[in-house]
Amino acid sequence: MSLLTVGTVAFDDIETPFGKVEKVVGGACTYISWAASYFINDIRLTSIIGNDFPAEEIKALEARGVNMEGLKIMENGKTFFWAGKYHENMNQRDTITTDLNVLDDFDPELPESYKDSQYVMLGNLTPDIQLRVMEQLTNPKLIVLDTMNFWMDVALDKLKLAISKVDVLTINDEEARQLSGEYSLVNAAKKIFEMGPKYLVIKKGEHGAMLMSEDNIFYAPALPLAKVMDPTGAGDSFAGGFIGYLTKTEDTSFENMKRAVIYGSTMASFCVEEFSLGKMKHLSEHIINDRAQRFVNITNFTL
Amino acid sequence: MSLLTVGTVAFDDIETPFGKVEKVVGGACTYISWAASYFINDIRLTSIIGNDFPAEEIKALEARGVNMEGLKIMENGKTFFWAGKYHENMNQRDTITTDLNVLDDFDPELPESYKDSQYVMLGNLTPDIQLRVMEQLTNPKLIVLDTMNFWMDVALDKLKLAISKVDVLTINDEEARQLSGEYSLVNAAKKIFEMGPKYLVIKKGEHGAMLMSEDNIFYAPALPLAKVMDPTGAGDSFAGGFIGYLTKTEDTSFENMKRAVIYGSTMASFCVEEFSLGKMKHLSEHIINDRAQRFVNITNFTL
Repeated sequence: MSLLTVGTVAFDDIETPFGKVEKVVGGACTYISWAASYFINDIRLTSIIGNDFPAEEIKALEARGVNMEGLKIMENGKTFFWAGKYHENMNQRDTITTDLNVLDDFDPELPESYKDSQYVMLGNLTPDIQLRVMEQLTNPKLIVLDTMNFWMDVALDKLKLAISKVDVLTINDEEARQLSGEYSLVNAAKKIFEMGPKYLVIKKGEHGAMLMSEDNIFYAPALPLAKVMDPTGAGDSFAGGFIGYLTKTEDTSFENMKRAVIYGSTMASFCVEEFSLGKMKHLSEHIINDRAQRFVNITNFTL
Repeated sequence: MSLLTVGTVAFDDIETPFGKVEKVVGGACTYISWAASYFINDIRLTSIIGNDFPAEEIKALEARGVNMEGLKIMENGKTFFWAGKYHENMNQRDTITTDLNVLDDFDPELPESYKDSQYVMLGNLTPDIQLRVMEQLTNPKLIVLDTMNFWMDVALDKLKLAISKVDVLTINDEEARQLSGEYSLVNAAKKIFEMGPKYLVIKKGEHGAMLMSEDNIFYAPALPLAKVMDPTGAGDSFAGGFIGYLTKTEDTSFENMKRAVIYGSTMASFCVEEFSLGKMKHLSEHIINDRAQRFVNITNFTL
């Protein structure tokens, strides 16, 4: 099975209560692709970078089975840059700088070889770009869209149009409330299902994630960790593990989506333990399965 | 088995985004005792009220098997009063008024018939009162202490002394961080175990609850609800269900404590659906077991 990943490839400056790093590799598509690469090896990356992005980072992803035909390199441009600072409560952060750079005129024309992709992970980007990707797909089996409150503020109609075309929407709890106008997440989900998606994943950071369909709810905790260095990319790593597992297993039943949420949460738990891709680059199937098993241990009970 | 419950019996004024009520019955001991009464019928209440507290409220608790020998009625006093207002985000609230009234000189002298109580739930109160109760116990099997950040601010040494004498501490996530000086809840728990308790329950409101021991972690979600009217008493209802189930089953293994957390979460889920004790007074074993089963359904998965 084939997975199309779309999103930013970026440089980040990050400050957390536990340290500070400058110009490290980041971006939704980077985290998604790295996380998914532990589950499948037919990944088709779609993004844009400038002439300043290190070639060895591209090669490292290629070595993991990520196809780079859809990566535009703008010879006269600079890579997207984001700088952010996390509060003591690491569920909250302030954006210090957003330099769109090459992203400013990104028109994601899919290579011919990408168009038949069956599983699609649309990372957080303008709804216009997400729509532009979707209209080029010839045979999608499952489309997952990630977004954020910013697009609800500035491009709500376009965002709703994009959401109407996808199978799974992933957002955080506050965004679910904003999008639906409902405080209760149960009611928020009902409103969101009316917009089109069949599944909703509500990401709650250190409080875990909820998977919802019209008839079912599944609540996965986040793994309690002794060391959390940097939450950047946690949501994208979750998305990568989630879609990677679904692409590998080719099963979009609710039961299997629950497992995908656990593998997504597993990848997010690795992501936050180091800055940037520090941990994400050095995992293995064995390490991942061991950690996924810890989710069984901390949630398992009988009445 | 016998359960001793200690805490406030109170009047509350409560405002939430969904309504406003005045002078309704509240108090930690009230919620704890009501919730526990669905599990056992040898409950020994220890509290203090003024001459203004409705006799029918006392009788309703007595009818549920709650012994009132330890309830002091001050003929010239007024019952403890609390007024609070919840934010749009109902995990946060502001205290508008706290009138201690009769609580000001509450010295909980236990009736002789209470002193051999085996299970003990010390609701949130001054650490002095919690210590005073503990020193009168002759045969405690399990002592659970609930407290809050206020006592960490104004009576930390006494609070630590009280904590050193209990088996289970229940606090929320921010309080666990404040008490331990550790941001990670895993590290916070380690520090708190050094203070004495063998078990820690971290209450996270709508994000659920974590049970921790030196070797184990259990993460229970809160039940996603369509209607949340008023979070007041949710933590106390949790505590009542938790200790009520443990008292009934007489099993303090980690496996059984997990079930107790689920029954505690079940009672909290009922509590928040109405103001005051609106829902809590009209439950049954059948209704409670049905809802507890929903926790199985939303957490159950296999890898």
